Order: sequence, then structure tokens, then C-alpha cells
Amino acid sequence: MLRDNEARKAKFEGVWNTIHDELLDHFKACGMPIEAQEWYSKNLQYNVPGGKLNRGLSVVDTVEILKCRPLTEEEYISVAVLGWAVEIFQAFFLVTDDLMDSSITRRGQPCYYRRPEVGLIAVNDAFMLEGAIFHLLKVHFKSEPYYVDLVELFHETAYQTEIGQLIDLITAPEDMVDLSKFSLEKHSLIVIYKTAFYSFYLPVALAMLFCRIPTSYTLPGSKSPVAPYEVAQAILIPLGEYFQIQDDYLDFAGVPAQIGKVGTDIVDNKCSWCINTALSLATPEQRKILDENYGVKPTQEEMETAKQLAKGKNGEEQGYLGEAEKRVKAVYEEIGLRKIYADYEASVYKRLIGMIDQIDEGAPGQEGVLKKDVFKSFLDKIYQRQK
Amino acid sequence: MLRDNEARKAKFEGVWNTIHDELLDHFKACGMPIEAQEWYSKNLQYNVPGGKLNRGLSVVDTVEILKCRPLTEEEYISVAVLGWAVEIFQAFFLVTDDLMDSSITRRGQPCYYRRPEVGLIAVNDAFMLEGAIFHLLKVHFKSEPYYVDLVELFHETAYQTEIGQLIDLITAPEDMVDLSKFSLEKHSLIVIYKTAFYSFYLPVALAMLFCRIPTSYTLPGSKSPVAPYEVAQAILIPLGEYFQIQDDYLDFAGVPAQIGKVGTDIVDNKCSWCINTALSLATPEQRKILDENYGVKPTQEEMETAKQLAKGKNGEEQGYLGEAEKRVKAVYEEIGLRKIYADYEASVYKRLIGMIDQIDEGAPGQEGVLKKDVFKSFLDKIYQRQK
Repeated sequence: MLRDNEARKAKFEGVWNTIHDELLDHFKACGMPIEAQEWYSKNLQYNVPGGKLNRGLSVVDTVEILKCRPLTEEEYISVAVLGWAVEIFQAFFLVTDDLMDSSITRRGQPCYYRRPEVGLIAVNDAFMLEGAIFHLLKVHFKSEPYYVDLVELFHETAYQTEIGQLIDLITAPEDMVDLSKFSLEKHSLIVIYKTAFYSFYLPVALAMLFCRIPTSYTLPGSKSPVAPYEVAQAILIPLGEYFQIQDDYLDFAGVPAQIGKVGTDIVDNKCSWCINTALSLATPEQRKILDENYGVKPTQEEMETAKQLAKGKNGEEQGYLGEAEKRVKAVYEEIGLRKIYADYEASVYKRLIGMIDQIDEGAPGQEGVLKKDVFKSFLDKIYQRQK
Repeated sequence: MLRDNEARKAKFEGVWNTIHDELLDHFKACGMPIEAQEWYSKNLQYNVPGGKLNRGLSVVDTVEILKCRPLTEEEYISVAVLGWAVEIFQAFFLVTDDLMDSSITRRGQPCYYRRPEVGLIAVNDAFMLEGAIFHLLKVHFKSEPYYVDLVELFHETAYQTEIGQLIDLITAPEDMVDLSKFSLEKHSLIVIYKTAFYSFYLPVALAMLFCRIPTSYTLPGSKSPVAPYEVAQAILIPLGEYFQIQDDYLDFAGVPAQIGKVGTDIVDNKCSWCINTALSLATPEQRKILDENYGVKPTQEEMETAKQLAKGKNGEEQGYLGEAEKRVKAVYEEIGLRKIYADYEASVYKRLIGMIDQIDEGAPGQEGVLKKDVFKSFLDKIYQRQK
């Protein structure tokens, strides 16, 4: 299974070179000077590949489930273009998110804007990544009847992601902690708009459009029509919210060696599910501790200690905590966040499984209709994830 | 005539409120918190209206010329939405251009990113301006047969503008003067991609799509088919280049009291037509002067003198020059830049008039075909402009 996953990833990665060359060829055809060609190539190569590719691969996976058969080579290329369009979409946002958040590293390398020759040019480079998506859609899908739906889906998802980013930016600026701005409702809005639409609904809806699933159909033997895009969204948005809540929870409770990073949400004043849940349940005393310690950076001395400890273990992540962060975590424990999370996870899982089970798949092997496996495969990857 | 122009502008401005409210209503319907609604409203109001509105108004003007009659109220609103979409498009680029160029003021107020609460959030706000364009197109034009053409035209123009901005950014960074990167060819590419497509071709092509001018037609009595969008582009791109060359020239030779600003291209290391023309004709001695003085900021002492002089005249712009800038301007004069410009202007005017005169307008009052006045009205506004 692992080997199979690696092979799938490698095959998908293989299409990237074709896409990169296609974008560059168009650039050359516009008569662009060689420095600009090289710059654009570097922008693409630095920012697009190199991630986990989950979102891009899920377009391919979903199409295979919906078609109930392996894809032809030609189909594979087209679907992979859509998958890479999702990856480019994500790169477009990550490049500027990192800049706006003053992030340091991304995918094990310095954030793009931190390269000395790049700086604020990253903003225009991000625009060009977005431009590449619509160029690719035009080249590969212009003649398809669902072309305009693909384009609108990317527009709408971009707008939603930007709206989510806006609420996040004005609710949780890193340099001005004000927990009165936080709430579980706002957390939900941020998570749904900033993450769930593009990470979960976008890849599946693209795959559904590719498979020409209509906006409404009635299965033989059934009386009521199905609105499959609405059904998909009704499942995938809470699923995406669950994924992000889990991510927030692992940032607090995950084992650094397992999740591959040390959580920084508390120090970074992130509008996380953990702090919002704690705020909703805190006594006045606990609230005071949260107000005084959330988003507080470690002292110089604490930073030094952390560095020393990290050196002693060959730079391995230690999860050394400053005092402020420790106090926040103690409140989380007092409130029983682990139990609250476990209950949430059990209940959301049950709810999602219930929704998925209600899907009518039509006859075995029937194309053009929703399949439970589209959603189950997502849920299986997420449920009780430890990393 | 002046009064007429003011009335036209006022009418166009009146539609902005409707568009703003429509965008905000959609935002509210998404369940956005009040702070986010207020933020988005401020983003729109600060960045979109308040310019000269030439680009937006030229969509309306062009439709009226092509239709050979005044517009109905309903038509006017639709066309004004396209005009405002062009203005939003420009705002999207100006917000981030100002950030990338570290500009200080725009349209008589501090650049948006310089507002203390904004900063780098300006990047996401710029994305949201772009998102607003496609939202408006969907709401107002989704059912039109030319909807997808409108969308693609905005995509393509955005991509072109971003490409132009990229070449500009890597050719003429403000902090690293290297005139060997400059050339008249690169200047032409920058100007065409960064300015001409969106300022000249975009508004006219939008108007042509609205008037349902087909991509090809053959007029009665003629043997050869016309490709009207290609004809329009063939005229409007050199016209846009002429406009920008004129702008560059006025930055050097214009009278500050007339053009309403003091030229800063030399000090700012701009890849202007003037420096590129000078470089193409400079003797080795002149080249040395340009290399040593272009992009060189005035000394502290020179800045003080300039400030004092400005104070003496109630803050009126003086056009006081630092020594480095004076030396560059002296080379421009030696090379005869005024004569070269006058010759260029005469020749490009003749060439453009020649192209315009070749347009076959069909019968008087005939709709759905190109009209000479579309292009003449642009050319008349530009030719021998002093401000």
C-alpha cells in the first residue's frame, strides 16, 4: 500500500514537468527576455512542487472512484492538470500567506519572499501563479462543456479563501493579542473559508465536473432528485473543518517526533480551536491566565535554553516551552481539552459517516453519480490521525 | 464640452455606490462578521474610486460610439459595471505596485499599504479586489453569450500586466542601478505588457464584446473578412505605447505646474523611454555620466534646499533638481531628446491615423462593426498632450 501510494505520487509528479514547460513555452512565445523566463521558472519550481500533494492527488483519486475504472493515459494527463491547478492555487496563497505572517520556513526551505533577490516581488509572483491556473484551464479545457464551470469554481474558491484570510488577519494579528476578538463561531468561519473550500470541496468538485456529474439527477427507483454538488459540499465542509480542528489540536497535543514539528499556535497568537474552546469554558481566573499568556513570545533566556537543548540532541526538535506557553497549556489541561476533542472527533465522525451512508450510488459501476468512497477515502485518512 | 465631461463622469460615479453595495451585500450574505464587512468596504472605497476614471469611462464612450446611439438606462448600468470592473482591475494592481515600489502617495492620499492598520494585509485586499471583478461579471453577465469571453479577457489581461510588472521589477529595481539591463526593446515590452493591454485594449475589447462584435465579419461590397479584435489591438497597443512614451517624456520635459507633479523617473531609476533613448545614442563620455548619475538620490543638503525653496512658495512644486539629476538631464539635452520625441510623436501619429483611416465602418449607423471614432477619440485626447 505504501509503495502503491509512492508510485501514485511519482506518476502525478511526472506531469509537473510537462505543465512547467508548457507555461514557460507560452512565456517564451510572448517574447519575454531570458531573465524573465528564468525568474518565472524559478517561481514555479520553488513554490509549486515539493508539498505533500494531497490536494492535487485527491482530484485524481476522486475521478478514479467516480469513473469506477482506471483512467486512460489521455484522461490521466487532463485530470493531473486539474490536480496541479489545485497545487498552484495553494502555492499562490502560501507565498503571500507566508509574507503576511512573516513566516520563516515552508516545506523545509526558507519561505520564498525571504530569498534575498525576491522580497516583495513575491506578491507579483503569486499573481502569476494564479494567472497560470487560468492559462492552463484555457489550453486544456476550453472546448469542454464544463470549461466555464471549472473557471467559476476557481474564482469562487479564490474569493472564499481570500475572505477567510481576511477574517483571520484582522482577528488574530501576530503583534496584537486581543482574545475578546476570538470566538468558536469566528474560528469556524475562518477554517471553512480559508481552508475547507479549497482543500476539500475544490478538488472533489473539479473531479465531479470532469466526470460530467450534472448539477441534479434522479436515480431510477428514487422519487427525489439529488443535487450532488450540494451533497458533496454538505459533507466536505464539515470534514474540512474537522481536519483543521484536528490540526489545531495536534499543534497542542501532538508528539513533535510524530507530527514532524513543534506547535507554535499559542506563541503565534493563532485563532486556534484550542484557545477558542478554552475561552468558551474558562473561569474568570483561567481567562486571566489566557489573556496574560496567550501570544506571548518566550523570553531571550528561554530562547537560549531551547537552542542549547536542541544542540545537545543534534538539533532534533525538543518541544521546549517558555513559561507563558506552559501556563496556557496548563489551562487547556484543566479544562479537559483532550476529552473535549475526543468527544468532538467521535461525534463528527459519526455525523459524517451518517451523511455518507445516505448517498445513493446507483448501480454498481454506474458512472455520472456520486460514490460513497469519494468521501470515505478522505475520512479514513483523517480519522484518528496522529500526525 | 467641459461641463459635458463632468456630467458624464458624475453619472458614471453614481453607479459605483450600487456596485459597492452589491459587493457588500454578498459579503453579508456569506455571514461575515461586521469588522470584516467594514474592512472590505474601506478597501473598496479607499482604492477604487477617486482616480481620473479614464479607463472606466472609455468603456462607456466606446459602447456609445459602436452603437451609434445613446444607451438605454439598463444598458448604461451594464456597461458601467464593465467600466468599473476595469477601474477595480487597475486598483488591484496599483495597491500592490505601490507596495512593491515603496511609493508614498497615490491620488493625493497615503498609499493604502501605508495606513498603519493595513500594512501587508494590502496584499490580500488586492486579491479581494480581483475577486470582486469576477463576482460582478458572474452576477451581471452570466447569461450572456459573451460571458466567457469577458472572463477570459480579464484573465489574459491580468496575466499580461503581471508579466509586464515582472520585467519591470527585475529590470529596474530602485535600489540597484544597472543601466546595462535597459534597452529600448525592454522598455517597449514593459510598456506594452504593463500598461497598454489593460489601459487601452481591455476597455475597448470589453465594449466590443458588449456590442456583440463578432471575431470576424465581411462587410457587403468587400471581399476580405475583417478580424476586428486584431485590428483594435494592432492600433491600441502602439497607441498605448505612445501614451506611455509621452508620459515618460513629460516626466522629463513637462512643466510641473502643467503636469501637476515633479518628475522623479531619473532619481527613481525608472526604465523610461528617455534614458533608453539616451543610452542608444550616447557617446562613451555621455554613457559614463549616465552610469554615474542615473538613479542617484539627491544629497541630504540638496533635499534641505529643495524643502526651503518649496516653503518659500507656499509649498508649490518647484522642480528643484539635485546635481546628479541635472547631469542626466544635460545629457538628454545634448542628445537632442526634445527633437527626437517631436519626430517620434509626429511619426506615430501619422502611422496611427493611417491605420484608423483604413477601417471600413460599413453603412452610417450600422451596428456590430468597428468605427473610426473609437480610436480617433483616444488619439485626440493624447496627441500633443501637455499634462
